[in-house]
Amino acid sequence: MKVRNRREFLKTAAMLGAGTGVWPIPGTGHEKKQEQEREEKLSIFEVIHERRSVRSYKSTPVPKEHMTKILNAARMAPTAGNQQPWKFLVVRDRSKIDELMNTCITRSIKAYQERKKPPAEELRKYETKVKAYLQNVFSAPVFIVVLVDTQSKWPDYNKFDGPLAAGYLMLAARALGYGTVFFTDTIPDQVTREVLRIPDRYQRICITPVGVPEEWPKTPAKKKLDELVVYESFSQGNNP
Amino acid sequence: MKVRNRREFLKTAAMLGAGTGVWPIPGTGHEKKQEQEREEKLSIFEVIHERRSVRSYKSTPVPKEHMTKILNAARMAPTAGNQQPWKFLVVRDRSKIDELMNTCITRSIKAYQERKKPPAEELRKYETKVKAYLQNVFSAPVFIVVLVDTQSKWPDYNKFDGPLAAGYLMLAARALGYGTVFFTDTIPDQVTREVLRIPDRYQRICITPVGVPEEWPKTPAKKKLDELVVYESFSQGNNP
Repeated sequence: MKVRNRREFLKTAAMLGAGTGVWPIPGTGHEKKQEQEREEKLSIFEVIHERRSVRSYKSTPVPKEHMTKILNAARMAPTAGNQQPWKFLVVRDRSKIDELMNTCITRSIKAYQERKKPPAEELRKYETKVKAYLQNVFSAPVFIVVLVDTQSKWPDYNKFDGPLAAGYLMLAARALGYGTVFFTDTIPDQVTREVLRIPDRYQRICITPVGVPEEWPKTPAKKKLDELVVYESFSQGNNP
Repeated sequence: MKVRNRREFLKTAAMLGAGTGVWPIPGTGHEKKQEQEREEKLSIFEVIHERRSVRSYKSTPVPKEHMTKILNAARMAPTAGNQQPWKFLVVRDRSKIDELMNTCITRSIKAYQERKKPPAEELRKYETKVKAYLQNVFSAPVFIVVLVDTQSKWPDYNKFDGPLAAGYLMLAARALGYGTVFFTDTIPDQVTREVLRIPDRYQRICITPVGVPEEWPKTPAKKKLDELVVYESFSQGNNP
């Protein structure tokens, strides 16, 4: 398989000192240009299979032209009756991102305290863990909140249009070398709504960081196709 | 822009008799191989921008290796806690597809009759229209019902995982030259459930044909990025 071969090649190349082994990440200058060119040659199947949920980011900025490409991809998702009910709220302001982070940390610790009533030592450990985790998440330079408009033409279908656009956005980001992750509970709806003053009219689908991963996580164990595919009808079994 | 240039090139090529002008469609033999190679070189951005909702299909079969590639793409969609709650019900049996079609036609005519109580002439016209439309839809050689398992690990998140997988599936199909369309009401849930005997345990997200388009529809009018993107916060306006 192509991907495996390339992975092996890169692993070897990394061992030989050719790079970080983390592939592909935008670098700078000439190197950056080369990497971009390489990424643009990734087939959609490679992008699909190499997208990962990323929870730890470098602070490297995302150039405007990449953001535009990513958002333009999201805009092309299937949408009921071409209604396009989306709003993409792009947050790059470091103080806003930090406010999101701090609110998440405070809420998380408070909830743990109320739920567990832990001894001081245990609470301190929990605090350290939560902070480390959320600091890694919030080190990304950009966040995008994917929203749908409850006043769209066919609001009953927003539940499909929203995730579809988020999926497109994440693939486009991956194609350009950026990680994303479909966050719901990690960054609660109420936190984004309050900090970013999102009007009631818009319903949140998810929020995702966009940034260069600290590293690309390994593919988690995936079900085999056989477990997921049923041919013709359930009553006939699922043999191909 | 790349895409436009290629379109123009192909339009010209078609006028000169180089093909049907419908690009790319799998052909046969050598031609088929060439077309496949060309498709595999489509960048993800080209695929995203050239995917269309297709409602009229050729009956050209979809080879098994393409089906596998399409389903394998769907399987890689983001999924909450890696739960992978999907079942992809693949229907290729012509008699089942016809049964789906006939049930849709009957239901649609009955609903129209009950709703409108139209004179005989008007009803006949409606019948003709509905039949033509659904015959075009159901000429596709394969249908995939995207389902989620209500007994999955985190069923509250199936509403995201389901559409995400459907979106991946549709992009992969487009990359290989096939049309799809995210059908909900056109082929009602109840019809697929009854005809295909889908157990109550599985909730339908959508059903899509997979096949070579009679033609690729034009891109419908799309909102500009400016209308869809808000920077930093709603209260600050949406200037980049």
